[in-house]
Amino acid sequence: MSSFTYDLLAEDGAARRGVIHTPRGDIQTPAFMPVGTAGTVKALYTDQVKETGADIVLGNTYHLMLRPGAEEVAALGGLHSFMNWQGPILTDSGGFQVMSLSKLRKMTEEAVTFQSHIDGSSYELSPERSIEIQCLLGADIQMVLDECTPFPATHDEAKYSMHLSTRWAQRSKDAFKAQAHRKEGQALFGIVQGSVYEDLRQTSASALQEIGFDGYAIGGLAVGEGQEEMLRVLDFTAPMLPKDRPRYLMGVGTPDDLVEAVSRGIDMFDCVMPTRSGRHGQAFTRFGKVNLKNARHANDPRPLDETSTCPAARDYSRAYLHHLLKNGEILGMMLLSWNNIAYYQSLMADLRGAIAAGDLSSFVAGFKAEQAAGDLTPL
Amino acid sequence: MSSFTYDLLAEDGAARRGVIHTPRGDIQTPAFMPVGTAGTVKALYTDQVKETGADIVLGNTYHLMLRPGAEEVAALGGLHSFMNWQGPILTDSGGFQVMSLSKLRKMTEEAVTFQSHIDGSSYELSPERSIEIQCLLGADIQMVLDECTPFPATHDEAKYSMHLSTRWAQRSKDAFKAQAHRKEGQALFGIVQGSVYEDLRQTSASALQEIGFDGYAIGGLAVGEGQEEMLRVLDFTAPMLPKDRPRYLMGVGTPDDLVEAVSRGIDMFDCVMPTRSGRHGQAFTRFGKVNLKNARHANDPRPLDETSTCPAARDYSRAYLHHLLKNGEILGMMLLSWNNIAYYQSLMADLRGAIAAGDLSSFVAGFKAEQAAGDLTPL
Repeated sequence: MSSFTYDLLAEDGAARRGVIHTPRGDIQTPAFMPVGTAGTVKALYTDQVKETGADIVLGNTYHLMLRPGAEEVAALGGLHSFMNWQGPILTDSGGFQVMSLSKLRKMTEEAVTFQSHIDGSSYELSPERSIEIQCLLGADIQMVLDECTPFPATHDEAKYSMHLSTRWAQRSKDAFKAQAHRKEGQALFGIVQGSVYEDLRQTSASALQEIGFDGYAIGGLAVGEGQEEMLRVLDFTAPMLPKDRPRYLMGVGTPDDLVEAVSRGIDMFDCVMPTRSGRHGQAFTRFGKVNLKNARHANDPRPLDETSTCPAARDYSRAYLHHLLKNGEILGMMLLSWNNIAYYQSLMADLRGAIAAGDLSSFVAGFKAEQAAGDLTPL
Repeated sequence: MSSFTYDLLAEDGAARRGVIHTPRGDIQTPAFMPVGTAGTVKALYTDQVKETGADIVLGNTYHLMLRPGAEEVAALGGLHSFMNWQGPILTDSGGFQVMSLSKLRKMTEEAVTFQSHIDGSSYELSPERSIEIQCLLGADIQMVLDECTPFPATHDEAKYSMHLSTRWAQRSKDAFKAQAHRKEGQALFGIVQGSVYEDLRQTSASALQEIGFDGYAIGGLAVGEGQEEMLRVLDFTAPMLPKDRPRYLMGVGTPDDLVEAVSRGIDMFDCVMPTRSGRHGQAFTRFGKVNLKNARHANDPRPLDETSTCPAARDYSRAYLHHLLKNGEILGMMLLSWNNIAYYQSLMADLRGAIAAGDLSSFVAGFKAEQAAGDLTPL
């Protein structure tokens, strides 16, 4: 199979169980995509990422264009070969990190120019160059360059920004079609903007569908508006998207965010939270978040979750994890990152099963009760 | 089997191929023991350590007595359970790190008192307490507390120090026999001291054999004397040790050190070099040491060693490893530590095979030629 297609397998309320077919393999949805910023899902081997159940990982255009460089990765056989991951890869457009990480940005109709946060050297990123980079990397799913509207934004600000993103989406689509490095079956997603304003989200969603994309992302959320507001925006934005294409909520989120967004019809997610929190000593579990640096774990012989299939959750005591983290041992970061990605993937698998069984609402109730019960009983 | 025994299987010149039987499993010798300082072989999972061919790992009494504490590890089921390693563990006595790491040491006939390098709190370490700690940890092979004679030392200094170590060896043996926490089949090794002086080494070796130990270590080497001098000391010290007990050269060393010491009749080694160098970007390979931070690797698509069975050596380009290290990615440290431990273990397996085949001298010649040939041809 050399094409990119989405099959909707089941629905339960607004929630969707589906599968995305790509030449690099299938992606079961709803899907969580571990983030491999600079060509590595931090502190994990790709074999582990795969074994936790992840079908696809994300790479960051911004980081990879700075180091080692898109042309350099292409010369080494592309990002899959470079990072030893044979499954599908989604790359973002680079726009979000230009806004959040780089110095001395200058935005024009044509492109954004910025200085690298690493060495201060200057770069220009246009919709066309972003697509070129993503094709050089060999990304299976590519994203249009957009402006992630800051929060809060007035209606006027959000409207101006959304229209710029729409014009860039058209340029991205044109560039994608014309790209010499593009391979059969690679896909391009549009990104709905419009901040918290329903009319702007509708305008954006309609304009993008007019252009036509293989999937649709919702951008400009999880930028400080809070979960309640994010879900309010999802409530009216998700139904604006076509049923026969995957829907991707960018940069989200906590386990509870994922459950709520899946319930509203989202199919794909990415977030640095499980790996970043893991490196800082926080474990995600069925019982909520556990801060293993806390002294109360120092003598606790219990694993994070003895029922888990992930060795990191099952085969090491909290006392040992606490010890590793207190000593700054790399293995502590490895084990918690692994546990967290495994927990996120098991949650997605549970959500897929619940939707397929038409049982999502009772699953969600059980999930919330277990998370609210908190950590295990104190010893 | 609940006893500790050593079988000498083959000899080739002074070199020995043997096996140590312990209740926790066999140790094929010559053996390299990866160092798990604070209860973790840094940046490696224990499964990986095992799969590289390591039969035994080392734990550090000094680090573990400070954090989390010997009684704490015992309460959690001992060091094997704590670090999820079911094979044999050797612990050092703590003496070497007291000398090299701690502050404000005071040495008396009775014990050494010192302040923790972590928080400045005071500890006392006596031969008896060292044995108690090692038994609480559950070490399969325990070491007598000794004074690692500094280098250089005059004959008088070395003589005084060696005699103190001999008296402490007797106290260690007495304490070991009396230890309530000791388990059947646990072993105690003596440590030959005497600096670079043949007469002192002979006095030490004889006195220790008079006391009687399950194995004999050579201490006070690899402390700045250089390889040539170390090998000169080994030349006269190894023959002083009984043939029917394992011989352990502490804290050694480079691949070439291991080859030379095995040729002189050493059976066991430990060293932080493969893991520490790995974390700093240096790879040990059949072709010598490779500094992957060097810019010449930035575009090199070749793996470290395509003939290796270790995925870290075989499945990632030098360009990717260079990229990870330049970016400070944890995966870079994970992969190089893995590669290095795997290389050390494959070298030991090759040495064991060569001795068994009576072919050691030609193996050594081939090893030296390959190492001298250096890194691969420049691209």
